[in-house]
Amino acid sequence: MTHSAEIENELDGDTLHEECGVFGILGHPDAATLTALGLHALQHRGQEAAGIVTFDGKQFHTEKRMGLVGDHYTDPAVLAKLPGTISIGHTRYSTTGEVALRNVQPLFAELEVGGIAIAHNGNFTNGLTLRRQIIATGAICQSTSDTEVVLHLIARSRHSSTADRFIDAIRQMEGGYAMVAMTRTKLIAARDPIGIRPLVMGELDGKPIFCSETCALDIIGAKYIRDVENGEVIICEIQPDGSIQIDARKPANQQPERLCLFEYVYFARPDSVVGGRSVYVARKNMGINLAKESPVEADVVVPVPDGGTPAALGFAQASGIPFEYGIIRNHYVGRTFIEPTQQIRAFGVKLKHSANRAMIEGKRVVLVDDSIVRGTTSLKIVQMIRDAGATEVHLRVASPMIFYPDFYGIDTPNADKLIANQYADVKAMAKYIGADSLGFLTIDGLYRAVGGEDRNNARPQFTDHYFTGDYPTRLLDKNGETAGLKLSVLASNG
Amino acid sequence: MTHSAEIENELDGDTLHEECGVFGILGHPDAATLTALGLHALQHRGQEAAGIVTFDGKQFHTEKRMGLVGDHYTDPAVLAKLPGTISIGHTRYSTTGEVALRNVQPLFAELEVGGIAIAHNGNFTNGLTLRRQIIATGAICQSTSDTEVVLHLIARSRHSSTADRFIDAIRQMEGGYAMVAMTRTKLIAARDPIGIRPLVMGELDGKPIFCSETCALDIIGAKYIRDVENGEVIICEIQPDGSIQIDARKPANQQPERLCLFEYVYFARPDSVVGGRSVYVARKNMGINLAKESPVEADVVVPVPDGGTPAALGFAQASGIPFEYGIIRNHYVGRTFIEPTQQIRAFGVKLKHSANRAMIEGKRVVLVDDSIVRGTTSLKIVQMIRDAGATEVHLRVASPMIFYPDFYGIDTPNADKLIANQYADVKAMAKYIGADSLGFLTIDGLYRAVGGEDRNNARPQFTDHYFTGDYPTRLLDKNGETAGLKLSVLASNG
Amino acid sequence: MTHSAEIENELDGDTLHEECGVFGILGHPDAATLTALGLHALQHRGQEAAGIVTFDGKQFHTEKRMGLVGDHYTDPAVLAKLPGTISIGHTRYSTTGEVALRNVQPLFAELEVGGIAIAHNGNFTNGLTLRRQIIATGAICQSTSDTEVVLHLIARSRHSSTADRFIDAIRQMEGGYAMVAMTRTKLIAARDPIGIRPLVMGELDGKPIFCSETCALDIIGAKYIRDVENGEVIICEIQPDGSIQIDARKPANQQPERLCLFEYVYFARPDSVVGGRSVYVARKNMGINLAKESPVEADVVVPVPDGGTPAALGFAQASGIPFEYGIIRNHYVGRTFIEPTQQIRAFGVKLKHSANRAMIEGKRVVLVDDSIVRGTTSLKIVQMIRDAGATEVHLRVASPMIFYPDFYGIDTPNADKLIANQYADVKAMAKYIGADSLGFLTIDGLYRAVGGEDRNNARPQFTDHYFTGDYPTRLLDKNGETAGLKLSVLASNG
Amino acid sequence: MTHSAEIENELDGDTLHEECGVFGILGHPDAATLTALGLHALQHRGQEAAGIVTFDGKQFHTEKRMGLVGDHYTDPAVLAKLPGTISIGHTRYSTTGEVALRNVQPLFAELEVGGIAIAHNGNFTNGLTLRRQIIATGAICQSTSDTEVVLHLIARSRHSSTADRFIDAIRQMEGGYAMVAMTRTKLIAARDPIGIRPLVMGELDGKPIFCSETCALDIIGAKYIRDVENGEVIICEIQPDGSIQIDARKPANQQPERLCLFEYVYFARPDSVVGGRSVYVARKNMGINLAKESPVEADVVVPVPDGGTPAALGFAQASGIPFEYGIIRNHYVGRTFIEPTQQIRAFGVKLKHSANRAMIEGKRVVLVDDSIVRGTTSLKIVQMIRDAGATEVHLRVASPMIFYPDFYGIDTPNADKLIANQYADVKAMAKYIGADSLGFLTIDGLYRAVGGEDRNNARPQFTDHYFTGDYPTRLLDKNGETAGLKLSVLASNG
Repeated sequence: MTHSAEIENELDGDTLHEECGVFGILGHPDAATLTALGLHALQHRGQEAAGIVTFDGKQFHTEKRMGLVGDHYTDPAVLAKLPGTISIGHTRYSTTGEVALRNVQPLFAELEVGGIAIAHNGNFTNGLTLRRQIIATGAICQSTSDTEVVLHLIARSRHSSTADRFIDAIRQMEGGYAMVAMTRTKLIAARDPIGIRPLVMGELDGKPIFCSETCALDIIGAKYIRDVENGEVIICEIQPDGSIQIDARKPANQQPERLCLFEYVYFARPDSVVGGRSVYVARKNMGINLAKESPVEADVVVPVPDGGTPAALGFAQASGIPFEYGIIRNHYVGRTFIEPTQQIRAFGVKLKHSANRAMIEGKRVVLVDDSIVRGTTSLKIVQMIRDAGATEVHLRVASPMIFYPDFYGIDTPNADKLIANQYADVKAMAKYIGADSLGFLTIDGLYRAVGGEDRNNARPQFTDHYFTGDYPTRLLDKNGETAGLKLSVLASNG
Repeated sequence: MTHSAEIENELDGDTLHEECGVFGILGHPDAATLTALGLHALQHRGQEAAGIVTFDGKQFHTEKRMGLVGDHYTDPAVLAKLPGTISIGHTRYSTTGEVALRNVQPLFAELEVGGIAIAHNGNFTNGLTLRRQIIATGAICQSTSDTEVVLHLIARSRHSSTADRFIDAIRQMEGGYAMVAMTRTKLIAARDPIGIRPLVMGELDGKPIFCSETCALDIIGAKYIRDVENGEVIICEIQPDGSIQIDARKPANQQPERLCLFEYVYFARPDSVVGGRSVYVARKNMGINLAKESPVEADVVVPVPDGGTPAALGFAQASGIPFEYGIIRNHYVGRTFIEPTQQIRAFGVKLKHSANRAMIEGKRVVLVDDSIVRGTTSLKIVQMIRDAGATEVHLRVASPMIFYPDFYGIDTPNADKLIANQYADVKAMAKYIGADSLGFLTIDGLYRAVGGEDRNNARPQFTDHYFTGDYPTRLLDKNGETAGLKLSVLASNG
Repeated sequence: MTHSAEIENELDGDTLHEECGVFGILGHPDAATLTALGLHALQHRGQEAAGIVTFDGKQFHTEKRMGLVGDHYTDPAVLAKLPGTISIGHTRYSTTGEVALRNVQPLFAELEVGGIAIAHNGNFTNGLTLRRQIIATGAICQSTSDTEVVLHLIARSRHSSTADRFIDAIRQMEGGYAMVAMTRTKLIAARDPIGIRPLVMGELDGKPIFCSETCALDIIGAKYIRDVENGEVIICEIQPDGSIQIDARKPANQQPERLCLFEYVYFARPDSVVGGRSVYVARKNMGINLAKESPVEADVVVPVPDGGTPAALGFAQASGIPFEYGIIRNHYVGRTFIEPTQQIRAFGVKLKHSANRAMIEGKRVVLVDDSIVRGTTSLKIVQMIRDAGATEVHLRVASPMIFYPDFYGIDTPNADKLIANQYADVKAMAKYIGADSLGFLTIDGLYRAVGGEDRNNARPQFTDHYFTGDYPTRLLDKNGETAGLKLSVLASNG
Repeated sequence: MTHSAEIENELDGDTLHEECGVFGILGHPDAATLTALGLHALQHRGQEAAGIVTFDGKQFHTEKRMGLVGDHYTDPAVLAKLPGTISIGHTRYSTTGEVALRNVQPLFAELEVGGIAIAHNGNFTNGLTLRRQIIATGAICQSTSDTEVVLHLIARSRHSSTADRFIDAIRQMEGGYAMVAMTRTKLIAARDPIGIRPLVMGELDGKPIFCSETCALDIIGAKYIRDVENGEVIICEIQPDGSIQIDARKPANQQPERLCLFEYVYFARPDSVVGGRSVYVARKNMGINLAKESPVEADVVVPVPDGGTPAALGFAQASGIPFEYGIIRNHYVGRTFIEPTQQIRAFGVKLKHSANRAMIEGKRVVLVDDSIVRGTTSLKIVQMIRDAGATEVHLRVASPMIFYPDFYGIDTPNADKLIANQYADVKAMAKYIGADSLGFLTIDGLYRAVGGEDRNNARPQFTDHYFTGDYPTRLLDKNGETAGLKLSVLASNG
């Protein structure tokens, strides 16, 4: 699986997607600009659309646009429409080939206590159940977004303060989420009870910031303060004197944190620090452990760019086999690649990757990738490497096999499309892919790479359900009464 | 005032706007295409944006676009995204220079009984009051649109059928409206208790249609059935056997109809039949009556295009003064005229109108316009006519002076900007405008032109509040508790 | 034929098109803005694209855009890219359904004597012959535009001054043209030897202007000076002291002027004065003469908008039959109407015209149109009027039958597509069109309407070749050696 | 200097640009599609615009678009407009902040012998001189493009065959160029006498292809045949029986080849083989030689992405210092980054690069970049690395200092802006940049890296004028009569 390999995704659905990145800042004169920059740094978490809301003391303002942050939000004319010192923003991932049911965030609602805007990354495992209950009591749902459910829960709370209402709402939600919200005076951040999705707190010029990853702090020169803890709600409020009061609460039952391992494997940016651990270092460790667990005699270690690069470097350092750029990536992908002619589609991975023959020809090649979803891309890349003259091609994957769907904000193909569910064993998979050998990192190898220790099977340090089926929460929508129910949903294409 | 004289509007706000046109059809295989054509015929009621919703038996589909119907909705690619045999659509008017607070319609909501989409033309005089009550009970409002209020009222109704819920909602609403709604099987139409806004029923291939004006029936070759009556709700439902059952109800207290006179004066298309009366004939009659009430010796009658043309023709026929095109209109107005340079702005009316000197020079000219709002455009046109060599310029207006704001869906400038409130008498106004004389049609003259009789002051046959201050309903939002309250509204520019 | 009736054109090719409008101004600080406004007033002569060139004392600047003048050229950002006090501009007509071979003008070339830009309206009857000669001597042609031929002829001239070179070039060209050109210091205007295409001279703030019609002077408040005479070349040059020297020459053999009658029938704007005659008055006269030549008993005279309106008014005044708007035109035509679905295409004329039933039903209707080309639109309009309940429909056409193609800048359908060549007589045509009777204005009736006298068959006062086959020049390309030859032309779609 | 580091370029002009990539194919049914793919692979040579010309047996077709190849040319609708089996294409580099004077290629001209289209990469050192001569003889130049000069020279040739005419033209041109041209039956390729710019020949399904780099062959699975030799003209012609005749000629005096070293240092894609040498291997060798020539004690070797990566890998392998991704590049740069607000501009390199703190903090860092032009970007990157906690920052540059401008197709800043001309020595440069030490590769080190041998000063194997001032041709425009002359050029913004 190659990071942000849009073409392959589009052609094959052969990748996983996370739904979003979030950013919020309170009390800063350049709130919208800083939010735009933060979202730009979080662009790897979603390229379909981005939205920003600000409040200027009188009115809320919002801009929502399809495309990259940098397609719109650095334009002075757009930023001029987002005045104010409070801002939250959201960037979401790119889907094509299916109807885009989800709304661009942040969502805004007028409540009795005033306006509120919310952006979130993740998914509620009881979202449909809650929605059903809400509708049953005479409310209307205008989107199919979970965020709208949160707005409803806040609106229905009997508490008077927004903060209490927010916590009231949070208590009813199950699943994995990282959320930022804003009112006329407050910036609120919340993370799910076991901390599946990441969320960090930073500070710039004394003003609080919340964002999905530390890379969004780095770009604006903000200081990292700490991670928002699992189950924590942090309410920052501007006081009449301009000072900011910060109130951190833990409304949920205390549970140990279980961060999503896929953040380390693939989603987070390598320069981010997630859960106190460098993502880059974790990925290198995955490669190192992979080299130990699944060694191979070869002449050259070649990363599948860009996702497999750090692990490949680790693999090379651990194995002593030279690391070389045997695949060159073409970053110049324009808009029309999304719906190309059949003829162009046939060129597949070559539109984005090309073999660097000088490093491949006559050589035994170890390809290192971060993960395999359906295997369709791997198959084409292996073929491309063979065509470039490799004598052997060994594929090493820096994560375990994926067997199970995710319900916490990662868009997974149907389970029966996953390569791990299609072939009896690694050998059969290797044959399908066309590799001379294939190796996956073990679950313990992955745990050690990230956290330094084997998996504590009694109390796993992370969530790893896509590998193990061990879901960290109940799955009410999936298994409960709502299971199988669907809304007569609105397909909004425009 | 010149119909759809966008430039002047934009430059001066010197026109009135109606908020929308609506269209709906049930059970037709070409539902979306017919809706697009119907909206195209209703384009004069709003050029800012248009939306269409369809239901294809499984899913609702929606497209909403800024711009003209013909900018998007005749594109096969767009129509292909709107499958299904039930469709409603909406076109809305163009605002510029202010923040666009209102949402593009139709609005859609998921209710317990299933999805519903609503489009409406008009305004609720208790919309803010209702909204306040709804929010107070824990609901969320995501827009500032009255249509959202209707959705909430439907959702909250204790009735089980959508039709009963719809009627329940309608009963709580005050003001002027013409509404179309659709569910998975139904097309619903409703008109306010005194029938301020128009709505007609037609039929094509045996399938029911509702639309704002008959011109939307004519374009698709549909047959006019009858007007939806004031206070009437008509529910059309597809039966399992494909037949359509039509159920007409009158939930509101019976009151006499009072159609908005401005539909006759300016809004409706001249080829439409509103309330059983030809709009064109009514306008010609206004000109005939004006010629009688406010005669003038002149050489030529010149319409201010396009709004003043039928009245000018009537004026000419009644007065015996020749009718001539003394003003030529340039219809080729492109996008950038909306925000031109200051230099170009200075050319004002000339961008759209030019004097036809051959018909003006050395002549005594009677200019006939449909109405005057602020007078700023009239001033420029009179000047243009003088510059073209007219020896005298007499302005005749085919409606009475406007003194009062509208609360039923017409966007009126602040009362103090109305020319009638700025000058003591017609003479002072004439002086401001630069005309040698100025005459307005009397209220009785207008009533006779439209309905054949003088105004029945005890029980007026139409609503004429902008002329008389005689509002046909109470004005709860304006005068009640909600008066002066504002929502912390969201400014959505994107 | 309805003026700028884009839909019908596109659907049927049932209209004639003129190729362009031109505008030029010298020495004015707002040169580009005034050119944009002038082109806006000339927009009826071409809606496909517009181009403007300026010179700022150091460099030439050019902007060329597809679409209306008002789509781009009133945008401050675009005007800012066109600095300088000399400017020429060009607007050209819209073709669809065929490959757009012609280049957007003005064209620019670097000559030994410096840069020159040229824009022209019209067509050279020896353009292909000249091009062939030019290419044979080793020159390259990068477009298929006649304007490029002019540039070559100027470049090849042995004269030293640009003015002499320009005249040298002009002398070699045959056909009909109105041309404006600019160098670093000069504005040049030229009209063909018999003055087929119109060109007028005006003045604003003491600065010379040339443009196709007087309406382009009116919009900017410029004063009309005189028509550029047939065969005249006028060279205006800024002197070092800022004053402007004007030099008018008549290089061609003196011949009487023969303006194109179609300018009066259809092309020119009604408020323009062409050849010293009001176009509006000429058109009314056509209607008056038509009423005399081809009277009919009827209840109402209905213009086919917008082209037929002045003639219909004349017809009504002469016949005493009331003039009424029996057809309402919808001006809101958006971009997607150009390539609509087959379904929408079927709605044909109704997309732009609708019958005003109140004026039609039960009546004997005289429809008055300006001209008939193929008759396909007339057929649909007659049907629409019948469907609206007319008891009789009589079509009266305010110009003679068209039998022959034009070679002077009017885009004509193939001769065999012209209705006049498809049916034996007026009766057969009337039957095809579905009219109860059909009448055309006679050639003498047309001459009298425009010039006050019958056609002088020995020396016709105008050119009327499309009606009579009497071409006012030889047709070298058509009849000479080049006949049938084609260039391996470049189809430029982008 | 970082490859395709658009932001920095735009902000600082701190990079070199090559003007273009070219591609041509003859006799293939998918000619346009293959050209689009080839240009996509050559996108690194220019991102501003791309053009494709085809010939379908009857007519030439052309599409020219601003933006990436993948923004337009994989759209079926665009490809459908490019039918035919002969095609050439061109992609050009992005300029901003200055007026774009050059035309988008290919250029087309109608000659006596038929149509011809030409695309070229490079620059003629006597282009202005030739243009002046051409214009003096009465030709017109409509662009400022050198390609137009070639068209003129072909047109003027006295030879009868296109091939002979082409060679005639080539003989008059001096400088560096790689050119593809097409007529109705021929595909022609030409390379300058000393082979400054690269051009290779390939084959797909037996059909000849010419393109700037081998990576354009790889993407479509075409076979590399050989490099077009310096001074060679290859004419491929489809015969009546469909076979292709290939005729290779060497019209120029035989001279040894001197390829541009910057192709190896920066321009060519690492997977390309230029002059028979792997670009990737050459770059790694540069890093290896740099490590030997300019060693440093450090903890980590960090490439400045993407340009510095292969050299950094070589440096690491040679020095034994670990290679780590200490800088992460953000590839998601949207359109609006080109003209951002001043505020966003201030974030400079951070918009595209971020420090990977885990690999930097507390470490002695060797940064390896491919080249330094102005040094402004280096300064910011060094600062960013220091801010991330590096204890020492050593900058190593894998090419010599740049002192001189290029005249063969590379866009160079003014000589006085080059860092090498601004500071007395390396120490002063290091101080400016803020590095603890700075080292450049020697010219011999570079020669050895590319060709395996030291520079042969008597007869250099490559051209290296930007480093040495040793220009491989005379510079007629710069030093001859034309020096200082300018054309009254047309600034075409639209």
